[in-house]
Amino acid sequence: MSDIKSLQQTIEKELQQLNFPTQPKDLYEPIRYMLSVGGKRMRPVLVMMGCELFNNDLHQALPPALGIEVFHNFTLLHDDIMDNAPLRRTKPTVHNKWNSNIAILSGDVMFVKACQLMMKVNEKNIQSVMDIFLRTATEVCEGQQMDMDFEQSTDVSIADYLKMIELKTAVLLGCSLQIGAIVGGADQSQAKDLYEFGKNIGIAFQLQDDLLDVYGDAEKFGKQTGGDIIANKKTFLLLKAKELANSEQLSVLNQWIKTTDEEQEQQKIKTIKALFDVLEIRKYAEQEMESHYNNAIKHLNALDISSAKKASLEKFSEQLMVREA
Amino acid sequence: MSDIKSLQQTIEKELQQLNFPTQPKDLYEPIRYMLSVGGKRMRPVLVMMGCELFNNDLHQALPPALGIEVFHNFTLLHDDIMDNAPLRRTKPTVHNKWNSNIAILSGDVMFVKACQLMMKVNEKNIQSVMDIFLRTATEVCEGQQMDMDFEQSTDVSIADYLKMIELKTAVLLGCSLQIGAIVGGADQSQAKDLYEFGKNIGIAFQLQDDLLDVYGDAEKFGKQTGGDIIANKKTFLLLKAKELANSEQLSVLNQWIKTTDEEQEQQKIKTIKALFDVLEIRKYAEQEMESHYNNAIKHLNALDISSAKKASLEKFSEQLMVREA
Repeated sequence: MSDIKSLQQTIEKELQQLNFPTQPKDLYEPIRYMLSVGGKRMRPVLVMMGCELFNNDLHQALPPALGIEVFHNFTLLHDDIMDNAPLRRTKPTVHNKWNSNIAILSGDVMFVKACQLMMKVNEKNIQSVMDIFLRTATEVCEGQQMDMDFEQSTDVSIADYLKMIELKTAVLLGCSLQIGAIVGGADQSQAKDLYEFGKNIGIAFQLQDDLLDVYGDAEKFGKQTGGDIIANKKTFLLLKAKELANSEQLSVLNQWIKTTDEEQEQQKIKTIKALFDVLEIRKYAEQEMESHYNNAIKHLNALDISSAKKASLEKFSEQLMVREA
Repeated sequence: MSDIKSLQQTIEKELQQLNFPTQPKDLYEPIRYMLSVGGKRMRPVLVMMGCELFNNDLHQALPPALGIEVFHNFTLLHDDIMDNAPLRRTKPTVHNKWNSNIAILSGDVMFVKACQLMMKVNEKNIQSVMDIFLRTATEVCEGQQMDMDFEQSTDVSIADYLKMIELKTAVLLGCSLQIGAIVGGADQSQAKDLYEFGKNIGIAFQLQDDLLDVYGDAEKFGKQTGGDIIANKKTFLLLKAKELANSEQLSVLNQWIKTTDEEQEQQKIKTIKALFDVLEIRKYAEQEMESHYNNAIKHLNALDISSAKKASLEKFSEQLMVREA
């Protein structure tokens, strides 16, 4: 299997060489900017890896790999408008640096470009690659809508939450591996196993992300813990706590959720964390995470590939997924 | 050739039967709404007609016809956000009835759906149909960006303007006919002639639209003449007048462009119209329009189809295009 760093470098180089016109300037400049802002290029690496499990010739996986990354950046661009986010990876977001109209339209063109790149696979694979890609694209939008709906809702269930992170984040990881596998010549059944592997890993690591916010090592983690608690983010932890709390605990929880006083932030984190401890939320979150992780490994083991390849895929996935937003 | 009304009815019925999920409600409800707001369904009719010129079996043209209409409505949905338009066809726009975030995301999903419908053609045609569709989709976005740029610009040339209307409006008409032709079994050269026919007709009728605003019959035309003049819209007429005006005429023109007083509207229309007359703007616009119209007919005549079919295509196109925004 290729070295992950070299795959990332290949993708980075090819992304920067994507040939966008110079005019209209305000349409294409934001696209070049967005694609230069970086990231770990996890999804295209998964496309390449999915291919390499079945075929050593990786050049045919490159266009769909780039397509997945352009698509991912299109979703980030539009999500940033919807979330009114000023920064992405410490740089101004497109709608902030230019304006919302330009961000909408540049995003639209990125999606067209993503489709064009996805179409650049062997003719016999176009139908199945596009089927998976377009179905996943729809699901990612559904996940984003659910996420927006949750902000207004007071009765989000754990099942709703798991469905949302599956659609918004996890399916695209599965899709990346599956498309890579198809391009590499895998049969439908193996490609589907890889999809399930990627999807379940995606859910597991999103849950890990929720856990790290509260229980992570702030230094290692690169940001202060408790950010989700301060923002009242409806994570697995908060939703599970609401589900399990008795009426007295629920009233304490709801009281703190209403508290937006910055001076009380540390007290808020401390109190809610203590409530999580009493309700054993960490245990439930870890159980949920492990269940998806084990499910992922089950699908990995079902693959008819060498155990060395399986091991490197598992290792790479872990490396790639940690703290990727 | 099929009766145009029956084609419109078929498309209308099939559009209403497109199977969108019910959840998330705020993602799919706006799409159903947008597709129910109506319109002449001109573009899908052109797909069907393009097919019928070469093949009497129209059922294979239906999915891409619907795809083109869904795509067109996606562009309208996003354009309405960018233009801050409160109404479309007398009904509230999606971003007005719901909100901008919902309009962005619903539009994104419509584009995905459009791609899925375009993919539902005979496997041997997928590559060429998608190539044309995606190239055109990019061009439509470029046209919209140029249109937005023009609002801020003080030196839009006639060539810029013609390029803008070509990209924003005309290429999609050409694309509709070309895709229909390919699905109907036409060879690449004939399909390209149909594209050029549709594109040039599109430019001609956009110019006619500019002319009708100033010289049209207000009653027949369904809106007051002079609307473009009041709004200082950079039409062919205004741009040509700026090009031809001497310094004194230019100063009068610029003075009136600055005038936003509603009580002076009729005087503004009268004065600018008089300037157009002195500069023979109507003649230049008609010449430009005829040049594109003749170009369209040249490509129509190059087609290896019966003259009856040619005549009905020409007639249908005229019927379809008048006052379609």
